[in-house]
Amino acid sequence: MLSERMNRLTPYVPGEQPQGRKFVKLNTNENPYPPTPLIDEFLKTADIERLRLYPDPNMVELRKEIAGRYGVGEDEVFVGNGSDEVLSFAFYAFFDENNGKLLFPEHTYSFYPVYCDFYGIDYRKVPLGEDFGIEPEEFTTRGDSCGIIFPNPNAPTGMNMPMEKLTWLLDNYPGDRVVVVDEAYIDFGGESAVTLLDRYKNLLVIRTFSKSMSLAGIRLGFAMGDKKLIDAMFAVKDSFNSYPVDYLTQQTGLIALKDTEYYEEITARIIGDREYFADRLEKSGWRVLPSGANFVFAGKPGVPGEEVYLTLKERGILVRYFAIDGIKDFVRITIGTREEMDLLLKEIETAF
Amino acid sequence: MLSERMNRLTPYVPGEQPQGRKFVKLNTNENPYPPTPLIDEFLKTADIERLRLYPDPNMVELRKEIAGRYGVGEDEVFVGNGSDEVLSFAFYAFFDENNGKLLFPEHTYSFYPVYCDFYGIDYRKVPLGEDFGIEPEEFTTRGDSCGIIFPNPNAPTGMNMPMEKLTWLLDNYPGDRVVVVDEAYIDFGGESAVTLLDRYKNLLVIRTFSKSMSLAGIRLGFAMGDKKLIDAMFAVKDSFNSYPVDYLTQQTGLIALKDTEYYEEITARIIGDREYFADRLEKSGWRVLPSGANFVFAGKPGVPGEEVYLTLKERGILVRYFAIDGIKDFVRITIGTREEMDLLLKEIETAF
Repeated sequence: MLSERMNRLTPYVPGEQPQGRKFVKLNTNENPYPPTPLIDEFLKTADIERLRLYPDPNMVELRKEIAGRYGVGEDEVFVGNGSDEVLSFAFYAFFDENNGKLLFPEHTYSFYPVYCDFYGIDYRKVPLGEDFGIEPEEFTTRGDSCGIIFPNPNAPTGMNMPMEKLTWLLDNYPGDRVVVVDEAYIDFGGESAVTLLDRYKNLLVIRTFSKSMSLAGIRLGFAMGDKKLIDAMFAVKDSFNSYPVDYLTQQTGLIALKDTEYYEEITARIIGDREYFADRLEKSGWRVLPSGANFVFAGKPGVPGEEVYLTLKERGILVRYFAIDGIKDFVRITIGTREEMDLLLKEIETAF
Repeated sequence: MLSERMNRLTPYVPGEQPQGRKFVKLNTNENPYPPTPLIDEFLKTADIERLRLYPDPNMVELRKEIAGRYGVGEDEVFVGNGSDEVLSFAFYAFFDENNGKLLFPEHTYSFYPVYCDFYGIDYRKVPLGEDFGIEPEEFTTRGDSCGIIFPNPNAPTGMNMPMEKLTWLLDNYPGDRVVVVDEAYIDFGGESAVTLLDRYKNLLVIRTFSKSMSLAGIRLGFAMGDKKLIDAMFAVKDSFNSYPVDYLTQQTGLIALKDTEYYEEITARIIGDREYFADRLEKSGWRVLPSGANFVFAGKPGVPGEEVYLTLKERGILVRYFAIDGIKDFVRITIGTREEMDLLLKEIETAF
């Protein structure tokens, strides 16, 4: 009874969401701090009669606020139901197997190959450098390709791509193929490609409210790029689901954008705790990749990542392990509160 | 820069959402009454700290509540971001051009051909009967097809398919091809196919919280069917967007399902006003198709639907007109409050 398309799917597996036992949850890169208290005020006074009506399908108010914040035009902003949906629409709109394979880093967000299978797009995984960084030259010397996508900072390594590498890549890649930079973690220390949008009409920058805005629960993501790219994103949206972003989500996003002070403070705290944690890990003999994200990718030489993951799970702490050649010696650890990181350090220091 | 896929898209155009001037809005089948006041209480006390975490990707609590309500198993329920997303996933999962064309009524929800173009599915529009009803025989005598989809009640006609026609169709259609019954409007007077799920493993019933539950603003829809079909829907979801239904939406849906008394009352009021309105229209010489929905499809003989639409718009009332051969003599009018319908009747009686 199923379509042939179903045979090609390999669904994405999100990090465990434990039921029952209470874990210290450092496995899905959620923010340890609550979102701005302004949201509480909004929900307390929200007009529930408004819920009987469809939300604005063009998300005009929210796009205007985002545009103002990032210095782009309103028609250069697309909003979707989490950055995963925004990514999915971008794959549909821009990546075409008739123009060659899509290129993305060998170790990266594991949803990218899932989207490719979903739409039937060929892809090629491009090796990382020896230090686990993304090497732009590797993307321009691999023959015909229909586009490029990578996160900056990359996941699960957490490593930033410096601005000069980013511009080199854009300068040396065909201007009629789209380059998507997935900036889910950029607020934790990377240099955003948003400032390059004027120069590169084939650049699409994708963001989320799930990480630095501490709003994974509301599902809100957005894309910024040339109007032509954004128009295409809307055409895809209107051929799939006219109203993907509900009223409460649009309003909550609007409000969150107004409290920059609060968010700067919690982001600084997370960055500080990341540096503290990485430093302590290194002092215990761990290898820690330099991180620009709200997590670190780290491993203890001689101890398989799986062992680290299982041992910590037994002790009530969830981190994420990837059973993939090349990164098996690492685990990805979300930066929680200082107390959580201290607890984890204590367990690590006694266990390994 | 766009993929070839983009060439085949013809995006859906939702009913006008007017900005600026205040209209009496009877064009998008929204409920004129607010959702249950229990939602107000929930939002006032919602734990915003919870928003920092991802929502439950399996929507377990909500699916359990829906299952209990409709007497199906929890693993026979899928939940999505509005019934439009649920429909989109169903098209992906079940309709395969390799097995023939998808069949749907000639005049029906205009998103169906949009989904077909989105996924590259061939379709054939099956003529309605002379009375505008859906004729099951027409669907079983049209050669090989990969599936059937229709709304019950149909849109924009509002007409119910009686249970004996529905079972005749299911008895006479191949059991290995999926039949989707889109019951967006069923609570306003149709007979649900939910009771047939035990007998027909190829039947998928789709529902929404947007109409009778008065929650178009939160985007929530669901599907009920055999576990095999539901598993396929989850595989599609997990290949497109792991968390399409946010935390507040899941909770709001849960709460809405608990207040059957309130919803039965407002639904009865809408049905009563529909009968009152249809009766008055007929007394003014209009043709009104028998409706089981929260709207009527009606026209004044000799007056083109477009003229009705434009004249009413000028007078501050929005209804929906479809510039499509065969239904050009009609407009679709949402049932609002009694006051709104009286206002509309006054305008109609003086204008035409």
